[in-house]
Amino acid sequence: MSMETKFRYARASAPATVANVGPAFDVLGFALSAPSDEVEISLRDDGRVVMKGITGDNGRLSLDAEKNTASVAVLHYLKRINSTQGVEITLHKKLPLGSGMGSSAASAAAALAAVNALFGEPFTREELVASGMEGERVACGTPHADNVGPSIVGGFLLIRSYKPLDVVKLPTPSGLYCTVINPAVEVRTEEARRILPREVPLADAVTQFGNIAGLIAALLTSDLALLSRSLTDVLVEPRRSSLIPGFDEAVEAAKSAGALNCNISGSGPSLFAFSTSQSDAEAIGTAMEKAFQCEGLESRWYASAVDGMGASVQEVR
Amino acid sequence: MSMETKFRYARASAPATVANVGPAFDVLGFALSAPSDEVEISLRDDGRVVMKGITGDNGRLSLDAEKNTASVAVLHYLKRINSTQGVEITLHKKLPLGSGMGSSAASAAAALAAVNALFGEPFTREELVASGMEGERVACGTPHADNVGPSIVGGFLLIRSYKPLDVVKLPTPSGLYCTVINPAVEVRTEEARRILPREVPLADAVTQFGNIAGLIAALLTSDLALLSRSLTDVLVEPRRSSLIPGFDEAVEAAKSAGALNCNISGSGPSLFAFSTSQSDAEAIGTAMEKAFQCEGLESRWYASAVDGMGASVQEVR
Repeated sequence: MSMETKFRYARASAPATVANVGPAFDVLGFALSAPSDEVEISLRDDGRVVMKGITGDNGRLSLDAEKNTASVAVLHYLKRINSTQGVEITLHKKLPLGSGMGSSAASAAAALAAVNALFGEPFTREELVASGMEGERVACGTPHADNVGPSIVGGFLLIRSYKPLDVVKLPTPSGLYCTVINPAVEVRTEEARRILPREVPLADAVTQFGNIAGLIAALLTSDLALLSRSLTDVLVEPRRSSLIPGFDEAVEAAKSAGALNCNISGSGPSLFAFSTSQSDAEAIGTAMEKAFQCEGLESRWYASAVDGMGASVQEVR
Repeated sequence: MSMETKFRYARASAPATVANVGPAFDVLGFALSAPSDEVEISLRDDGRVVMKGITGDNGRLSLDAEKNTASVAVLHYLKRINSTQGVEITLHKKLPLGSGMGSSAASAAAALAAVNALFGEPFTREELVASGMEGERVACGTPHADNVGPSIVGGFLLIRSYKPLDVVKLPTPSGLYCTVINPAVEVRTEEARRILPREVPLADAVTQFGNIAGLIAALLTSDLALLSRSLTDVLVEPRRSSLIPGFDEAVEAAKSAGALNCNISGSGPSLFAFSTSQSDAEAIGTAMEKAFQCEGLESRWYASAVDGMGASVQEVR
């Protein structure tokens, strides 16, 4: 059985995401409401998948359909629905590359939302995650889901298990805002990985267990004081923070400006900080920017509500 | 400032508990509704704390007030309220000793509920946990809170942190039942501890993170399918289960009889299994009892609702 569509064009966007949320290393991510990558997809009857163009990347991303995260996700998707039709993809990059804000994931998520709309939404959002992971495989070497999952599904997404894949959407506490700041320092993914310990003391793992449990309970009960106390990572962040000049000062600045807490976003160098209003989120951005300036680092920050939205389809025709 | 009371006598009980709930090693425990230890406390104006008597222990527990878990907890409590009055304590043991069902914790919890009632409830239930931990220190060598906490407070209790102590009561899903079975095999606490790894692979810790997050989300959303999938411990149970003959067979029997899952209770040898009705909980007990019989082991099981109640005061005068 193969699936054909009557539509010719779809356009969708998908937002930046924060993975490795405090103690919840590799198992929890959430979607911001901005910035978002945008993807346009047009049907090709010759069955081929082509990267037609990319804007906003300064020529850094590949137009080879086997190498670009958006097209690789779409190739996986089309195979799953057994399509005889192909597509051409135009990607409009709005997210900074290599920032720890889920840039590759947002491109794949937007492409999948668009192609799923093009084919009449045969898959649920959760079902798209497996195809998004294939995009992450070419982008990062491992098919992780903690960015692409929330970028597609929205809100806080728990990756309970990979074998089998089991993703659980958690309710988003109301009134939660997030600042993400991207300082102009490169953290190479290989270095961020190499610095991870292979083994960890059981006692430290137990400390992490308590904080993960506290974090999940806080999200589900909208207990922001508990959220603040639980956002502590004793296993990974103490190592990775050494790769980010001014980390301690930026965290301190965020807290002084009213942040519930402040942690590394993904594998860095971006940091994220929760707060309870848009104005606090903006004040936190300004305070962290100043802290990084004292280290001689320029940075760019984004402040937005954590609103539970993920990828969205703007147009299908 | 010292506190005096007009009451002369109080009687309270506190239930068995399950700690190390699936993946949530050392950070989560919950209260059963039965069996319960009972404690009677009478005021002594001479300021001394005395263990007057113990029933149901076959003479195995100490009457030395510095060594019994109930009196040690009470001594800590009286010091905190700066009391000039003392008490004498009678302990009625209903829980099996050394079973992994929180026997020492139930005695301390009942004693604390009684003495707190005697002095007019100056402390909340959560505030009593710190004194209960002192009882656990003499009973087990470490002042852990994951049995005594839920035995006092009731329901599911998260021990997010010890430094500082931070306990969080989680909502109990409605319609949840539990079978606990205590096979007649001794697991010495030292052996159960010695067998623990000092270090664990980060990859296994991450598997545990996902299951802990899933477990907490399941409890807070009453998602029993997620609860079932999340009750997997890849770090500790694979080692400790080797100390329990017939473990695999008993787990299989529990699942075949309708259990959501089945894990070691505390450090064993008891096992616990969740289900969704009293009749299922009883059928699971019978099935596990048969499985242990095939290994030549007698056992005793308890089936009850997980009802969110902890220690309760029966009388104060």
